[in-house]
Amino acid sequence: MFKTTNAPLKGKLHIIGCGSAMPTKEHFPSSQILELRGKQYMIDCGEGTQIRMKQMHLKTTRLGHIFISHLHGDHCFGLIGMIATFGMLKRTADLHIHAHPDLEQLLTPLLNYFCTDISFKVEFHPFNPAKNELIFEDRSVEVYTIPLKHRVPASGFLFKEKIGLPHIKREVIDFYNVPPYKIGKIKLGEDFVTEEGEVIPNEIFTLPPTPPLQYAYCSDTAFCESIIPLVEGVDLLYHEATFAEDEAVRARQTMHSTARQAAEIAKRANVKRLIIGHYSARYRNKDVLLREAREVFKSTKLAEDMQVIEF
Amino acid sequence: MFKTTNAPLKGKLHIIGCGSAMPTKEHFPSSQILELRGKQYMIDCGEGTQIRMKQMHLKTTRLGHIFISHLHGDHCFGLIGMIATFGMLKRTADLHIHAHPDLEQLLTPLLNYFCTDISFKVEFHPFNPAKNELIFEDRSVEVYTIPLKHRVPASGFLFKEKIGLPHIKREVIDFYNVPPYKIGKIKLGEDFVTEEGEVIPNEIFTLPPTPPLQYAYCSDTAFCESIIPLVEGVDLLYHEATFAEDEAVRARQTMHSTARQAAEIAKRANVKRLIIGHYSARYRNKDVLLREAREVFKSTKLAEDMQVIEF
Repeated sequence: MFKTTNAPLKGKLHIIGCGSAMPTKEHFPSSQILELRGKQYMIDCGEGTQIRMKQMHLKTTRLGHIFISHLHGDHCFGLIGMIATFGMLKRTADLHIHAHPDLEQLLTPLLNYFCTDISFKVEFHPFNPAKNELIFEDRSVEVYTIPLKHRVPASGFLFKEKIGLPHIKREVIDFYNVPPYKIGKIKLGEDFVTEEGEVIPNEIFTLPPTPPLQYAYCSDTAFCESIIPLVEGVDLLYHEATFAEDEAVRARQTMHSTARQAAEIAKRANVKRLIIGHYSARYRNKDVLLREAREVFKSTKLAEDMQVIEF
Repeated sequence: MFKTTNAPLKGKLHIIGCGSAMPTKEHFPSSQILELRGKQYMIDCGEGTQIRMKQMHLKTTRLGHIFISHLHGDHCFGLIGMIATFGMLKRTADLHIHAHPDLEQLLTPLLNYFCTDISFKVEFHPFNPAKNELIFEDRSVEVYTIPLKHRVPASGFLFKEKIGLPHIKREVIDFYNVPPYKIGKIKLGEDFVTEEGEVIPNEIFTLPPTPPLQYAYCSDTAFCESIIPLVEGVDLLYHEATFAEDEAVRARQTMHSTARQAAEIAKRANVKRLIIGHYSARYRNKDVLLREAREVFKSTKLAEDMQVIEF
């Protein structure tokens, strides 16, 4: 019965789309669903997100919160269609959208016109993309903003699992005949007192909890050193890599990153793994992006639409 | 040099999406591009239209006018993304949107926020969906509204080619040594006067022009007899067929048609060919829809996403 809490649950990242603004045959615009401890968090929602989700057989019954990095169309034009569809599916749980304050003004007239008969509330939670702060937490996760450097106010997100309960040493529990109803208390730190009155210290029964997972999403952004301390040591970093090095000037002008720059951030932040995405439509073959990133940071992979990454 | 005007040009219908409101693995929501005499006219623009167009290698350099049947999301949510992309592609030609008057109020704030740097104008041409009237014409085509019966004001569209110029009998031209600069005038109806002053009557040089094509689009609508005279004899009719007969009650409640009802309209209007679409997501296999329609009107086909129909 404690397995659900303590099993070394993996994080799962569903890449719904990892293209950039111009649609291509291979890539839908940005959207992801992060699964942590059985809950789903959506990050960005470009046009066609609900269509891709259907293609991926992705059910979203455990999706309550959507985080929008910035108000460019390729990161938010899919919201209205998806919300309308949730309405047709008779969703009842409220939906929470965390975004730049302008989104509420933009989306509300559309919701009032197209989604008059939906049976749930859409709640907006505006945040300030220029600040690094905690914008959301539930029982298992904290979400922090990561200020980015883009043509419009933009923010990445750091998802930090909270520390779970310690693991129980089953054989020690059996040895001391601990009754099942006591196990919960031991997990919460209590010592165990035997029938004879002997106090067995808590640490004998427990192993440290699974280290909490951390996932960071940084898109869209120019190369931005201030990201580095904010994503220090994360298990998985998704960083945009719109261009290869030969387009470094264009990257700077449009306030995007090269694959090499994404890898530079990953390396200096000592992250465990890097996933690059948000590819410019000019790269049908992304080998050059992968090669340039790996020269700097070996543990790099290319994101692909409809891919599921466990970490 | 007259070939471009007089060659028996076919009509081409690009089915971009023919699903209904709920996205499926097979179908995107409604959108089509009709090509007549080398010009493109878009009808409806559901979410993901620009993505599908990319998958179809559909270039839209000759697209100037978009006709929106009604303001349900699956017929118009793709507009904002497509217009934003046209902006990135540095389109310069103005884009004309014919729709219910409300669309301008809904779309303008989005255009002002997301499309500030586009190099073309988006012009709205509101029409009254309750009226059957001419809403647009250019040199080769007239477009009429077809009032439909749906939960919100909705209108189909009749595209009517204008009568072209007569065809020239090349061998008669050669026989009378008609100089090339005179041919245009003969096409416009003038007689020919030989060098000897002999008047050769116009009809000797000409064959009647290619009969003008007519295409009608009717979606979304309940069974609606008043459509029949308005689509009488068209070369191709696209009619929604959201449900099979066993869902006839649901069709009536939601103001959609069954495949059989679509065929009934086609038959009574003596159209040449019928294409059905706007399938409910419940039909993964559409054989039942095709069978029920063909029982009433033999020359019926199922629309498929990314299909090109010549007529």
